[in-house]
Amino acid sequence: MQSKWIWYRGDYEIYHGLKLHERRYEFGVNIPPFWSQPAVYPTVTFTKTFEAKAEGYVKIIACGNGYVNFDGGKKYRMGDDIFFSEGTHTINVTVNEYRDLPCIYAVSDTVATDRSWLVSDNTCEFINAGDNPAYTDPDVTPLQFPFSYRRIMPQSLTQYGEGMMYDFGSETFAELMIENAIDTAELTVYFGESEEEAADIKNAYLFEKCEGMMSYRLSARAFRYVYIPDKLAASLKISAYYEYLPLEDIGSFECEDKLINDVWKTCAYTFHLCSREFFLDGIKRDRWVWSGDAYQSYMINNYLFHDNDITRRTITLLLGKPPYKQHINSINDYSAYLICGVYDYYFSSGDIDFVKFILPRVKALYDFIISRLDGRGYVVQRPGDWIFIDWADIDKNGAAAGEQMLLYKAMTSMYKLCEACGEDGSAYTEQAELLKNNINRDFWRTDRGAYVDSFDSGLERVGRHTNVLALMTGVADEEKKDAIIEKVLKNDGIPHITTPYFGFYELDALCECGEFEYATQQIRSYWGGMLKLGATSIWEQYLPNEQGAEHYAMYGMKYGRSLCHAWGAGPVYLLGRYYLGVKVTSPGAKTFEVRPQTGGLEKIMGTVPLNGGYVYVEYENGTLKVYTDKSGGTLVIGNKRLALKKDENLIVNIK
Amino acid sequence: MQSKWIWYRGDYEIYHGLKLHERRYEFGVNIPPFWSQPAVYPTVTFTKTFEAKAEGYVKIIACGNGYVNFDGGKKYRMGDDIFFSEGTHTINVTVNEYRDLPCIYAVSDTVATDRSWLVSDNTCEFINAGDNPAYTDPDVTPLQFPFSYRRIMPQSLTQYGEGMMYDFGSETFAELMIENAIDTAELTVYFGESEEEAADIKNAYLFEKCEGMMSYRLSARAFRYVYIPDKLAASLKISAYYEYLPLEDIGSFECEDKLINDVWKTCAYTFHLCSREFFLDGIKRDRWVWSGDAYQSYMINNYLFHDNDITRRTITLLLGKPPYKQHINSINDYSAYLICGVYDYYFSSGDIDFVKFILPRVKALYDFIISRLDGRGYVVQRPGDWIFIDWADIDKNGAAAGEQMLLYKAMTSMYKLCEACGEDGSAYTEQAELLKNNINRDFWRTDRGAYVDSFDSGLERVGRHTNVLALMTGVADEEKKDAIIEKVLKNDGIPHITTPYFGFYELDALCECGEFEYATQQIRSYWGGMLKLGATSIWEQYLPNEQGAEHYAMYGMKYGRSLCHAWGAGPVYLLGRYYLGVKVTSPGAKTFEVRPQTGGLEKIMGTVPLNGGYVYVEYENGTLKVYTDKSGGTLVIGNKRLALKKDENLIVNIK
Repeated sequence: MQSKWIWYRGDYEIYHGLKLHERRYEFGVNIPPFWSQPAVYPTVTFTKTFEAKAEGYVKIIACGNGYVNFDGGKKYRMGDDIFFSEGTHTINVTVNEYRDLPCIYAVSDTVATDRSWLVSDNTCEFINAGDNPAYTDPDVTPLQFPFSYRRIMPQSLTQYGEGMMYDFGSETFAELMIENAIDTAELTVYFGESEEEAADIKNAYLFEKCEGMMSYRLSARAFRYVYIPDKLAASLKISAYYEYLPLEDIGSFECEDKLINDVWKTCAYTFHLCSREFFLDGIKRDRWVWSGDAYQSYMINNYLFHDNDITRRTITLLLGKPPYKQHINSINDYSAYLICGVYDYYFSSGDIDFVKFILPRVKALYDFIISRLDGRGYVVQRPGDWIFIDWADIDKNGAAAGEQMLLYKAMTSMYKLCEACGEDGSAYTEQAELLKNNINRDFWRTDRGAYVDSFDSGLERVGRHTNVLALMTGVADEEKKDAIIEKVLKNDGIPHITTPYFGFYELDALCECGEFEYATQQIRSYWGGMLKLGATSIWEQYLPNEQGAEHYAMYGMKYGRSLCHAWGAGPVYLLGRYYLGVKVTSPGAKTFEVRPQTGGLEKIMGTVPLNGGYVYVEYENGTLKVYTDKSGGTLVIGNKRLALKKDENLIVNIK
Repeated sequence: MQSKWIWYRGDYEIYHGLKLHERRYEFGVNIPPFWSQPAVYPTVTFTKTFEAKAEGYVKIIACGNGYVNFDGGKKYRMGDDIFFSEGTHTINVTVNEYRDLPCIYAVSDTVATDRSWLVSDNTCEFINAGDNPAYTDPDVTPLQFPFSYRRIMPQSLTQYGEGMMYDFGSETFAELMIENAIDTAELTVYFGESEEEAADIKNAYLFEKCEGMMSYRLSARAFRYVYIPDKLAASLKISAYYEYLPLEDIGSFECEDKLINDVWKTCAYTFHLCSREFFLDGIKRDRWVWSGDAYQSYMINNYLFHDNDITRRTITLLLGKPPYKQHINSINDYSAYLICGVYDYYFSSGDIDFVKFILPRVKALYDFIISRLDGRGYVVQRPGDWIFIDWADIDKNGAAAGEQMLLYKAMTSMYKLCEACGEDGSAYTEQAELLKNNINRDFWRTDRGAYVDSFDSGLERVGRHTNVLALMTGVADEEKKDAIIEKVLKNDGIPHITTPYFGFYELDALCECGEFEYATQQIRSYWGGMLKLGATSIWEQYLPNEQGAEHYAMYGMKYGRSLCHAWGAGPVYLLGRYYLGVKVTSPGAKTFEVRPQTGGLEKIMGTVPLNGGYVYVEYENGTLKVYTDKSGGTLVIGNKRLALKKDENLIVNIK
């Protein structure tokens, strides 16, 4: 019996989302998100009925003020000892805290606070409370996010003008520690993901002025380089505390090509840096939570940590609370990705308890989407909407095909979520089928073997994004898929994707269709290309033809590009899913397939996490070895299907 | 051009509601409200386009963090000087503050922050910002409520055991000031609305332990008596800071009967004490905002201060924000009163701007009410509902008549609110007519000249509450009204009302029907009865047959009864509305009637506020004098109607 801090389920995420999103600074200016943020319920009531087999006591401690009502009688203060006799007792705790997160913890020899307690926002709707294994200590409240810290030192110091440049050797996210300062001297510290940025004090994105103390521990931010342009720098002692979430790498990948191995490691490191309170887009610039970026992170997470908690936290924050007056992050596509993400999370985790909690909010979001369709049932841009898809030239006039395809996938996700909860979801399938037929009728061009971005505009533009979405959402049938691969994806006449974001979807779609060689080559040239330029984490965007500091510019800013962006970590997913070949085939990974492919490599080996278990795959010289600690696995080689036994090696010769 | 602090309209009220409602202590235990409280929007964006006739500057200061985007260009920090040229400019300010109220203030030679700015909760829905004339000083933020303070001294000090009893002479709400204390000695201070309460240290509702300082200024609370049971008390210097809202008494009333004059003054003082951030029920015990209590306060306010701002603040807080999952204060009747209150506010103030702002929330609340009706279209008790009506024996089984009557009045209010906004409200009238017919069919008993409380129970109980509601909601036609007066209200066989709450409605209904003598007698015996017992403010409940400290007990607590309760201030309204006879007859008091009645008194004189103006009425010895500074008035004497001229006396001999 272990007490944990408990709160109104979902409000922990909203609270830490508020704290996270207020930390963005840009050239010294604080930039809150431009989308709507929900608030926590300020007044909540917890309740629990329990059986005491003997006399006992309980004391409730709280973040917030309020009282304890024991057996409907006397009202106690927080912190009061309550003694009770053997028998059945009911404890009600009302907490009020509008500045932080209302939460409680029971100190008792009989009853523990945990998610078995019910909680309400002081209406008569009670749900199970939220808890988290990180909060078992009464002195460590949920107001603190459970980060770990490790002291790190600069790898090199260089005289730079009158000051000093410190290189920490690789991208990090850390609290800079300055010792030996003089309290009467002002210091300004410039941060850079690149040396150029830190040195360019007019354009460096992040800096901080320090004054009045002998030592400073600055708030955590992203950097590799630190520049202090003051003579004083020479006498300072500089170090940093790396701030991170101690997630375990279960996934791994190695092959005979060091470059690909390095890509995998750099992707994994990039993903670590971006996996914090929630899945972040990138750690330097906005450090916000974006539903589209997060959707890819859910996929990558399943092949690296398989940490269900961070995916659940991210989904919960992104959904916020009804009423919905705006798309998620204000972006139409991001609302659809979020709904799809809830189902994908269920499929990989089997966590029906979470689905039942979140489904009312998902339905409210879905209804919001539907309320803004046009007369044809198509997503169009309404006031306040942002039709994003990608940073790319896409014809978004009128009804953009990509948005309809994502809506189709969201509809099928709604159906499957309802079915999982034992509800009738047939209305959603009917809507989905109708939409799919309309998309194929209106956007498909047989002669061109492609979907057009839009037909409202009359431009009849064919691009990669729309056709990648057609593959990944299931709108295209087999015949259309083949045509798209040949006439669009393999067609160099059609402009290439420049972000790893959609680059990832494109490779995913190609791998899904068995086109591995292009994937292997892309991992070498695109991801490997960044590494050859010295990247220690994967960038937001990479254009091979750019030179030097051009690589760092974006959004009209010299150092606007993020050099550590989660959506760059896609190879972790691709190499795990298609090369090691591990794929979940029923909710919660109760069953799964292993279908290894070398993709042109000679030997591959690695591990894929599987919702609490893992699969190890090794191939070299015609010998395939597969081991898993989970039951329900099937090894697939060509048309052969071999059952995998839990805790046993299966060795197959496939020369 | 005067800048004011601005915020998301309505969130100022929600913020101060949260602050207010967290201050209730009961025997040292903090008691937050048991109903759901909304939160402010943590992230908001303000926008203004303005014309500069010359070069100028602006600087934005904020509660919260964020940035200023000027002409869509550079982002400035809060507090940065922004210089601009002649011409048209657009300023956008995004503020993030989840712990308090996000708000801004412009320091500028050209542009002022005020309600002409637009604001959004970071969705694309913009509304006019909220402001308040109290916040013109950049150093006084809206986080502070603009109370005034006046130092007051105890009227007497008495040795009491080893300690001292301080009597401040009358009920007050103040911060107790203790000087000359010894920092090593702990003191406990007991407060009492009665001397008995302060002296009864085991049962005193409010107390505070003080330790470690030489002087203390305690947080404000209600008391007349203060008891410090320590030897040390003899050497202390005790005073207090009376905390109040400086609302001006425009209303007044005097007649030849000193007791009635004292009742009026005591009611006015009681009402002052309960008129603070919002209309409170009472100032000692819960100090919360209750919609039913507030509804009477709106009425009384119109005859004392006619302060539109406090009514608007109270309505705004009570409505909170959709989605509604619970009745207002969890009480079905209180939701209906709130809707009626919005229309009544509009009728007395003419404030269509507020109605347009609040109507979407009112509609959402109305839809919530309708969603919980039974198959017959009747209000019934659903999970979480509290069918209150009054602290009285009422048959509330199944559909309680009083609830249906209030719903009828809410429906007619919805209709009138829609019409005022230029919307079609006919659906509401149709619902109202249908409901009225059903009520008359199901609850009216012709033989008994009365409505029964409930017919579902079969008890066929006839009581005053239901029949008073039938009169005040307009469900009863003229014939039924007469029957009710005779067979219910004038029937001593039917138990009398014991709270001034419904006592007020009963007198209102009787006066409306011309039954003044009973009203005059009640003011003398019921309200005057409390004064004869030494009351310096009007009580929550008064039972003439109780003795001594019995008068202070309620809710199972020795001093549970509030001795300063807003709903006791009804005579201010009754004497102004029916004796001085002033009644608004069109929205905003554009027209009004003056129909004086002496109610058995020989001479009456007094003033009634009229939405920015007033009417003075004086009658003695057959001579009636009426003066008003407003146009639109009509003096009604019997069947005669005489036009009142603005700023002129009208003297009529009515012997």
